[in-house]
Amino acid sequence: MTAAGPSPARRGPGRRPGSADTRGEILDAARTEFADRGYDGASVRGIARAASVDPALVHHYFGSKEQVFIAAMALPVDPGEVLPDVLAGDRDQLGERFARLFLGLWSDPAFREPMLALLRSATTSERGAQMLREFVASSMLRRVASAVDAPDAQLRVATAAAQLVGVVLLRYVIGVPPLATATDEEIVALVAPTLQHYLTGG
Amino acid sequence: MTAAGPSPARRGPGRRPGSADTRGEILDAARTEFADRGYDGASVRGIARAASVDPALVHHYFGSKEQVFIAAMALPVDPGEVLPDVLAGDRDQLGERFARLFLGLWSDPAFREPMLALLRSATTSERGAQMLREFVASSMLRRVASAVDAPDAQLRVATAAAQLVGVVLLRYVIGVPPLATATDEEIVALVAPTLQHYLTGG
Repeated sequence: MTAAGPSPARRGPGRRPGSADTRGEILDAARTEFADRGYDGASVRGIARAASVDPALVHHYFGSKEQVFIAAMALPVDPGEVLPDVLAGDRDQLGERFARLFLGLWSDPAFREPMLALLRSATTSERGAQMLREFVASSMLRRVASAVDAPDAQLRVATAAAQLVGVVLLRYVIGVPPLATATDEEIVALVAPTLQHYLTGG
Repeated sequence: MTAAGPSPARRGPGRRPGSADTRGEILDAARTEFADRGYDGASVRGIARAASVDPALVHHYFGSKEQVFIAAMALPVDPGEVLPDVLAGDRDQLGERFARLFLGLWSDPAFREPMLALLRSATTSERGAQMLREFVASSMLRRVASAVDAPDAQLRVATAAAQLVGVVLLRYVIGVPPLATATDEEIVALVAPTLQHYLTGG
């Protein structure tokens, strides 16, 4: 926080929402809090305290904890926005929609780079792994699993996620030839039935 | 190489195969050569030159380049030994045999730790990625693809590998809850049909 004046959050309706600096300081504090406490352990209140601002200001700028995380990690996509659309469509095409969404996002360097940074952090430090695992579980797996009608829904969704994560790891990180050079559509054609099987048993 | 005496490889039949030090020096040279040139670019001859020994001595200690790599990276399993057995059995159980072999190996920390070191190196440096990708392509994917009867055999095998790699990444590195806590057999039951589909179209 800058040293100047009262907290903008206390100015009431019509207030100006603080300086660009304040926003950046909240994000800095959020990155530290998520790294130190994991995704589950961090809170909007704790992030506000670390940034010396009112929690209402964090809500004002970002909304929920999930959205603070997305902004702090510079993730270009909000799972809370894209997943409901994918889940809402025709059930028979669920696997195909997931495969196409995921591969489409990863084909964009602006999406891929921050995701690779998260993945590197998760493979090289337990703190990074904890942060990513809790965010993935809370923000993605639970949302998708709620739409899967099976006693082992969470395991099925995680195994489907493993298929997609493995593909982008071999395609974009390790660069294994046929996966690195195939088109998105060739890969979608192979993995869509797999995802469909995990998610709907079909 | 130790400074003492002529190269043991030049002593002819019945020679003693050098000191334990010589073996270690060959492995040190091999790690440097693989990191600098990748798996495809490295050669037994180049490794011997870097270790200042005769190539015959490298062959004597280790055999092929593949086996030098396996020893240098402390990989506990030789794909050239285990893959033919898996490929030779009943075709209808191919996916299940692969899933069980892979998960069984990864459940052993003595297997997991050197593999995780390779994976970390691949996610954090392009040299590490090149080394792993070329070894995986040459030592594993090609062997398995030769047993798959499909025009896109290499892509199918790589996608099957992606499923397994994704599972162990989420299970052992990121620690995503249902995959981290499920039993090997629960996971085998889910992924075996997927692998079977990729490898045999069934």
